[in-house]
Amino acid sequence: MSTLDRINQSLEKAMILAHSKQGPQLLQEAMHYSVFPGGARIRPQLCLAVAAACGDDDPALSNAAASAIELLHCASLVHDDLPCFDNAQLRRGRPSVHAAYGERIAVLSGDALIVLAFQVLANSGTRSIFRLGPLMNTIAMSVGSPHGIVAGQAWECESKVVLRDYQRAKTGSLFEAATAAGAQAAGADAATWRPLGEWLGEAYQVADDIRDVVADQTELGKPAGQDVAHDRPSSAKDLGLSGAVQRFDELVQKSIASIPHCKGEKMLRALVTQESERLVPSDWFKDAKRKILFRQTSHS
Amino acid sequence: MSTLDRINQSLEKAMILAHSKQGPQLLQEAMHYSVFPGGARIRPQLCLAVAAACGDDDPALSNAAASAIELLHCASLVHDDLPCFDNAQLRRGRPSVHAAYGERIAVLSGDALIVLAFQVLANSGTRSIFRLGPLMNTIAMSVGSPHGIVAGQAWECESKVVLRDYQRAKTGSLFEAATAAGAQAAGADAATWRPLGEWLGEAYQVADDIRDVVADQTELGKPAGQDVAHDRPSSAKDLGLSGAVQRFDELVQKSIASIPHCKGEKMLRALVTQESERLVPSDWFKDAKRKILFRQTSHS
Repeated sequence: MSTLDRINQSLEKAMILAHSKQGPQLLQEAMHYSVFPGGARIRPQLCLAVAAACGDDDPALSNAAASAIELLHCASLVHDDLPCFDNAQLRRGRPSVHAAYGERIAVLSGDALIVLAFQVLANSGTRSIFRLGPLMNTIAMSVGSPHGIVAGQAWECESKVVLRDYQRAKTGSLFEAATAAGAQAAGADAATWRPLGEWLGEAYQVADDIRDVVADQTELGKPAGQDVAHDRPSSAKDLGLSGAVQRFDELVQKSIASIPHCKGEKMLRALVTQESERLVPSDWFKDAKRKILFRQTSHS
Repeated sequence: MSTLDRINQSLEKAMILAHSKQGPQLLQEAMHYSVFPGGARIRPQLCLAVAAACGDDDPALSNAAASAIELLHCASLVHDDLPCFDNAQLRRGRPSVHAAYGERIAVLSGDALIVLAFQVLANSGTRSIFRLGPLMNTIAMSVGSPHGIVAGQAWECESKVVLRDYQRAKTGSLFEAATAAGAQAAGADAATWRPLGEWLGEAYQVADDIRDVVADQTELGKPAGQDVAHDRPSSAKDLGLSGAVQRFDELVQKSIASIPHCKGEKMLRALVTQESERLVPSDWFKDAKRKILFRQTSHS
């Protein structure tokens, strides 16, 4: 079974916990719609890759950790798209949850997905019961206040923002949790694995900023130009486009360099390289540079 | 130390986990504002009372359970008050969170409080590590889909609602979790204690419906007449006022009768009686009856 199949199977299993014919149906439908079909599932992929590199001696727990992280990511997308934030009508190429199910169900789906993430951990059936508390703490810290993804979103409500604090909380924290939790699920040391998640999370955020400027809606599956539209901090705005691309390349190299010596080293390097190519494809970017040049010429 | 002091102290300790000068400040302020000063803290009181009745041999865990339940209750109030739901400007006699901090911070505070609830459990420092998973599961189930308080709120988006399913999810579930988790935190059997929470939760919901019809804004600390305004299911509408009061009294009696024989039996009976008097005071209700009569007379 591929890792992606393993992740989707764990997520389907998680959804069963939230399902009943006796419960309200719209909420359940919207929760499923928020999680399936997924994107690249990069966070749970990373979590399971690190768990594998550390021996993965308790797959029930690493599956639960990977699912919990993806559920929390999906919850954050649902709430970020709400009218009071991005008011995004599109996500992954189809109507966002609030566009499809209304704002009330979107708020509640996000809430229920957060709860489900922790329920999945509580129900993992792990045989390594002493790992559960620290693992849950890692994941909770990466989502809540003061430094998790919710705090990252809350930086957008502050008058003064340090770009790096904002990006690290909004995106980096969950990547860091993915590597740390993958290690913890396999009984390994979380701290050794945090730098990989940290660098990769920063790379991912820079890539997102670049894509927001360069890509069009069809390529993104969601509206482009949102950082400028919402006056959000962005490395593409701060560093210029070529500066941002250079920064992205540096961060990918730092990610790769941070991978500790281990049995899964080669597999992890390959995963990071493949993911960076998916995020900012060399070919696509050459095209995009032409597009920008064309736009500039036609505007002048 | 009184139980209420113990609860508030645990909650203050919990807030420290969400606090940092390096994190976004509005979110942290709004989270604190959502939790302090509290109401009667009836759910954590109930949780700790049951834990005490069962020996409370691991106070670190019962404190964490009680705090988690109250944090989840506070989160639900913040989200229920949002413009897309009740659009309530008042809560506990002062501006609701979205009225005070804006809608975005209100959404994020609710999210962060849900996360914090599970973080508190992960950080309890319990010495009874085998109790953690089942306890977390009890609490998660009482909040999420298909039968927790979020599902209860989601029933308001369905076209067909069974009043009892709605009330049991929206209010009963967290009361049931309070008694079950109190027992589990002390190593006792959850099932024995569920009926107390279930009856009391139903009583509380009926009381809320009665108060919504009878009380005025000053007494409630929030706008009155919301069930009618939002066309929500309500036992006061379904059974009439006197029918609802009779139902309330029956449910209080059932709650008391369900208390298992134990060392804390007397204390628990006293707590239930005191709480029912607080909810629907005999005197206040006589007054309220006069008020209704007066309204009817003056409208005719």
